[in-house]
Amino acid sequence: MAVYTQVSDEALEAFLKEYDLGTPLSFKGIAEGVENSNYYLETSTGRFILTLFEKRVNAADLPYFIGLKQHLAAKGFPCPEPIHGRDGASLRTLEGRPAVIVSFLEGLSPRKPNVTQCRELGAGMARMHLALADFAMTRENSLGPASWPRLWAGHEADADALQPGLSALIAEDLAAIAAAKPQSFAIPRGTVHADLFPDNAFFLGDSFSGVIDFYFACTDALAYDLAVCLNSWAFEDGGRDSIDYNFSKGAALIAGYESVRPLEPTEREALPILCRGAAVRFFLTRLIDWSSTPAGALVKPKNPLEYANRLAFHRKVETAEGYGA
Amino acid sequence: MAVYTQVSDEALEAFLKEYDLGTPLSFKGIAEGVENSNYYLETSTGRFILTLFEKRVNAADLPYFIGLKQHLAAKGFPCPEPIHGRDGASLRTLEGRPAVIVSFLEGLSPRKPNVTQCRELGAGMARMHLALADFAMTRENSLGPASWPRLWAGHEADADALQPGLSALIAEDLAAIAAAKPQSFAIPRGTVHADLFPDNAFFLGDSFSGVIDFYFACTDALAYDLAVCLNSWAFEDGGRDSIDYNFSKGAALIAGYESVRPLEPTEREALPILCRGAAVRFFLTRLIDWSSTPAGALVKPKNPLEYANRLAFHRKVETAEGYGA
Repeated sequence: MAVYTQVSDEALEAFLKEYDLGTPLSFKGIAEGVENSNYYLETSTGRFILTLFEKRVNAADLPYFIGLKQHLAAKGFPCPEPIHGRDGASLRTLEGRPAVIVSFLEGLSPRKPNVTQCRELGAGMARMHLALADFAMTRENSLGPASWPRLWAGHEADADALQPGLSALIAEDLAAIAAAKPQSFAIPRGTVHADLFPDNAFFLGDSFSGVIDFYFACTDALAYDLAVCLNSWAFEDGGRDSIDYNFSKGAALIAGYESVRPLEPTEREALPILCRGAAVRFFLTRLIDWSSTPAGALVKPKNPLEYANRLAFHRKVETAEGYGA
Repeated sequence: MAVYTQVSDEALEAFLKEYDLGTPLSFKGIAEGVENSNYYLETSTGRFILTLFEKRVNAADLPYFIGLKQHLAAKGFPCPEPIHGRDGASLRTLEGRPAVIVSFLEGLSPRKPNVTQCRELGAGMARMHLALADFAMTRENSLGPASWPRLWAGHEADADALQPGLSALIAEDLAAIAAAKPQSFAIPRGTVHADLFPDNAFFLGDSFSGVIDFYFACTDALAYDLAVCLNSWAFEDGGRDSIDYNFSKGAALIAGYESVRPLEPTEREALPILCRGAAVRFFLTRLIDWSSTPAGALVKPKNPLEYANRLAFHRKVETAEGYGA
């Protein structure tokens, strides 16, 4: 939620000369995207978003992310479309950072999605999966199950400091996931967003209008995307002492997805362990951010306990029906 | 440079129902304005900025700031124009904060203004002064000379920690200003912006296109606005060891101003002490922000030494000619 890299007048002017976008009319830093610097850019030919990639994004992955968005846009799926410069390239350098201009996508991110929006999101995500079925590039999920023991190591005490006894529960989750080996399930794989939280989806009213921020996208189980969304769209508030799975929202999300792409029996079977795994993934990265942020910092990291609460719910669910499927 | 207050879906929807602006198409937090939360708001009828006023702005001053912008807009001076709700009011409440929607102003803030932009800014500011000549509301400058001894008290050691011997120099500046009593000069007074830094001015190419962020505006000497701009537009970089007054930029700024509103002899005479006073004002508020920010904070305050360097220059200037007037 910040602008990390300032762009000088000369650098912006020189950068825009590489494009056929006309003259600039507005240029404002926007508080969107945790990892990168984003600017609203308006020119005499339209509105755009200019992104500078900061250090946390691996530059070697950028052609994959840009190729993915170009593929989706070419299929008519609503997402920010990378704009080509005069030389045909869309990835270039600005202020020493990799940078890209993408089309402006209309829509608002719901702060608290309603049931209709959950259904729409499910259907939109399934359309995205289908549109990506013939996307040829691949990328390993760098935050998949293989990475979790490494992320967890050394953070047991941080977990127990947040909630006494939590580290033993997380160790149980990791053991259960390792035993289930969800990554080896014979379930459909493809290109997934892997971070499709409400702030990465746009709506006009209750109608789905697009997806942004593909910087965790990777090749993984399609149903893992559904698991990420059940965690991020169908739980409410996630207060310290409450575990609030909103069954109506979860059921609507799954029904919306299945209205476009019905789940296979193996995917339904895997859903509880995938949901548990997705919650572990976000718990772990939040725990690391939480414990590495000094107490007096102005930017508060997100509370890992919100995902510990979700895990408490997932541990009890044995079938897809438990999520409303 | 942040968004402090989040706006819920329901609150935004209810708020927009008070206006005739159509349906929302985009809503993004923007990194503009140090004191308030600002959002880019696009609706089916146009583009706007939604501002929520945070605690540092005195709510009692808001009718003045809004009236000022309405007055300027009615005169055709380019600035964000407060939008009336259906009930005729433009100041209302959102998420417990005073809030206003203003028109979107095209233009880019120069990071490093050139000579042409300095001349344009001077002319634009003079047009603003003339447009405000019949603005009836008044507001005392809460950061004027009377406030400086109080701001300074207790910060002598902070100044010396930044630069050994600095506190004695600042005490000299305050004594010189008190002896000169610039606030009692018989020079033209009126409504001034009082914070017209480059990030508060917009340009299309080199052409002045408007002014934003009037939240320090007040009733004071018109030439004080010129003094603030000479400090903020005509010095370069302000590195620790350099005092770089760009004479060409300063002369262009003054010439641009005088092309619209020639300075009176008393204003020329007061210019050096006004420039020195303006530098003291920004030095002091930066010093307070600097010394109240913990060392490890993510948001770095602006370095007060940039204004200590300007003061070193101003102490040696005796006439307006020293600034290129």
